[in-house]
Amino acid sequence: MERITGKYYIETPYELEKAAAVLAGEQSSGTFVAIPGETEELKQRFAARVEKIMPLESVKEPAIPGATSKSGLYHRANIEVSWSIENFGYNLPVLISTLQGNLYELTQFTGLKLMDIELPASYSGHFKGPQFGITGCRELTQVQDRPLIGTIIKPSIGMSPQQTAALVKTLAEAGIDFVKDDELQSSAANSKFEDRVDAIMRVINDHADKTGKKVMYAFNISDETDSMLRRYEYIVNAGGTCAMLSLNSVGLSGVKKICDQRQLAIHGHRNGWGMLNRHPLLGIEFPAYQKLWRLAGVDQIHVNGIQNKFWESDDSVVRSIEACLQPLANGTTVLPVVSSGQWGGQAFETYRRTQTVDLLYMAGGGIMAHPDGPTGGVVALQQAWQGAVYGLTQQEAVKKYPEFANSVKKFGTSS
Amino acid sequence: MERITGKYYIETPYELEKAAAVLAGEQSSGTFVAIPGETEELKQRFAARVEKIMPLESVKEPAIPGATSKSGLYHRANIEVSWSIENFGYNLPVLISTLQGNLYELTQFTGLKLMDIELPASYSGHFKGPQFGITGCRELTQVQDRPLIGTIIKPSIGMSPQQTAALVKTLAEAGIDFVKDDELQSSAANSKFEDRVDAIMRVINDHADKTGKKVMYAFNISDETDSMLRRYEYIVNAGGTCAMLSLNSVGLSGVKKICDQRQLAIHGHRNGWGMLNRHPLLGIEFPAYQKLWRLAGVDQIHVNGIQNKFWESDDSVVRSIEACLQPLANGTTVLPVVSSGQWGGQAFETYRRTQTVDLLYMAGGGIMAHPDGPTGGVVALQQAWQGAVYGLTQQEAVKKYPEFANSVKKFGTSS
Repeated sequence: MERITGKYYIETPYELEKAAAVLAGEQSSGTFVAIPGETEELKQRFAARVEKIMPLESVKEPAIPGATSKSGLYHRANIEVSWSIENFGYNLPVLISTLQGNLYELTQFTGLKLMDIELPASYSGHFKGPQFGITGCRELTQVQDRPLIGTIIKPSIGMSPQQTAALVKTLAEAGIDFVKDDELQSSAANSKFEDRVDAIMRVINDHADKTGKKVMYAFNISDETDSMLRRYEYIVNAGGTCAMLSLNSVGLSGVKKICDQRQLAIHGHRNGWGMLNRHPLLGIEFPAYQKLWRLAGVDQIHVNGIQNKFWESDDSVVRSIEACLQPLANGTTVLPVVSSGQWGGQAFETYRRTQTVDLLYMAGGGIMAHPDGPTGGVVALQQAWQGAVYGLTQQEAVKKYPEFANSVKKFGTSS
Repeated sequence: MERITGKYYIETPYELEKAAAVLAGEQSSGTFVAIPGETEELKQRFAARVEKIMPLESVKEPAIPGATSKSGLYHRANIEVSWSIENFGYNLPVLISTLQGNLYELTQFTGLKLMDIELPASYSGHFKGPQFGITGCRELTQVQDRPLIGTIIKPSIGMSPQQTAALVKTLAEAGIDFVKDDELQSSAANSKFEDRVDAIMRVINDHADKTGKKVMYAFNISDETDSMLRRYEYIVNAGGTCAMLSLNSVGLSGVKKICDQRQLAIHGHRNGWGMLNRHPLLGIEFPAYQKLWRLAGVDQIHVNGIQNKFWESDDSVVRSIEACLQPLANGTTVLPVVSSGQWGGQAFETYRRTQTVDLLYMAGGGIMAHPDGPTGGVVALQQAWQGAVYGLTQQEAVKKYPEFANSVKKFGTSS
């Protein structure tokens, strides 16, 4: 029988073997009373199994509050625990409750993070994965051999549908591939969702009629299930190609329901992610997290960016991008969305470390505030990526590309 | 215009005023380019507003990784920030993205926890709240003037529907009010969901026919949306009165969709909660958390228990119970589910501190492993609560109640 393996980074005041057994016991059959007919075979079949314990360092202060260590030491380790898929089948919420659930409550742990999940082969058959993914999003936007270049509407709240549409028109004419709502914007008093779709899709469809290129706009439909379905349909009918969901706010069952419609690319925004990840010994790491949303069918997912304005390290961002490019359900991949303080200068380091152009590369000020205007901004980003792929340094790219040179003057620090 | 206020506990290497402004700015209109037509009036209307800054202590080590302090000090404070409901209306996922969202990513904070939310009056009109809540769950189980006494099926995985039903029969005959699936159990290889409902509801309906009392069984329907709706209907048709959802695993949009059916009491399990709460300066506190799920319509929600086996303090548990009993949408309340290591001995302290019997009081071993059998276990819990309400000490209750006295012998430590 197939098994699913959870890989954890733990800290415990107890012996590692004992702590691992507690973890497996809590998320397993439990045995506090003897049940007639409960055989050793049944236990073998349904109980969680500790597969590996890889000891790391011991420390003198616990990472998070829990039981006090008698020895004064808190032991860290990587451990692996597996479950038979007979326990939950293909039920993602129950899988999450099994892999995480009450584990974070256990006083036996002063740190616990789910690092990765190993899924069995049959999951690839059962879950279709994203309908579009990298290949589909490239086809929808007609972009090959370079990252999709995207931006976000700012101010996120306060603009009328007409003002937003005017901005989209400017961006489309500048050659943008992708534009998105802010996660704070869905349907506001002065920008009703349907009015915004109407105004923006008129601009995008007109531009497509003229140029043959349809800009992908991610309308934020995050809401209750019925509203999301209604607005999804509204986008489809208006000729749109993408909807955005705030994954953590909507939750897995709602996101899966929307992805299952399979007519629009789903832009997965991970706002709230810091709560789940920022502490080094609490929560979940991105390689595990992204697998769950890819099984649900998300086509694009946020990964932050190299030299970002947030707290995340470049190493972590690189790991996240690499995780997205690993095939999962039905051999599909998910398009990593790179954002946060990006203006093109980071293209070189991003490419050097990931060796991929399969990215949706988002810049805000780097486009709108470019000295040559938005067109210069979009061109500069394309140039930066071309230079990066050609193996140029930033200085060499500055000599070759005038628009990128102007980006560096405005946004760059010495490099 | 009505506003929603988020109350945060923060830590920052920056001046408090500056950090609060960053928080409000990140979750607000944003201003990185000047937009034609963006007036001061528009900003006033849509921008987040810092309402209060209440400085606390400064510390020398940051609680979580972030920006380094130049002064070497990290300043803690309680702050309040408000948003106009024009920004998101009655959209709970966008409200969550606004109140939490990218805030946890900000390097300007080395700690950030959402402590509570103040909702405007119109939310009470818009959101119906739970269909059953405390009053409705009491009516369904015919229990007045004492906590509902409940238990959980163990082992959580591995028993056949027939074995589970036999256990439910024993518990029903013992006088139990409520029984629930484990959060790890929904539909497993040897306990298909529908078979389990059939077997258990046969027992519960038979018992109700004989005695007039229908035991409430919380079947775990956590899954994708369509499956949850199908199984919800299956429970309704079988004469059941309750369904269980793992709130964090299913997510808000899925939970709201199920609650909106309004035919079954919804048992809200908070597994995964430790990830969101365990660090003192990261995540969300229960007073804020429970409001979101109550707006979604959850009838019962887990609060852990006094002297529990997990890491949570009694003070935190008491605050959680009190939060549940505050009226919210349409003046409704939610039934607090007390569990984790409970056997009756904690009734005295629980009542002393909360002065309420509006609880679903869950015990596992305290019932099944009682020296006089499950009937003795259920009776002992009822006695403990009667004693607590009468103002008896545990010692006085031991003298008065023989079954409770046997509980103390088996489960109690010196008191």
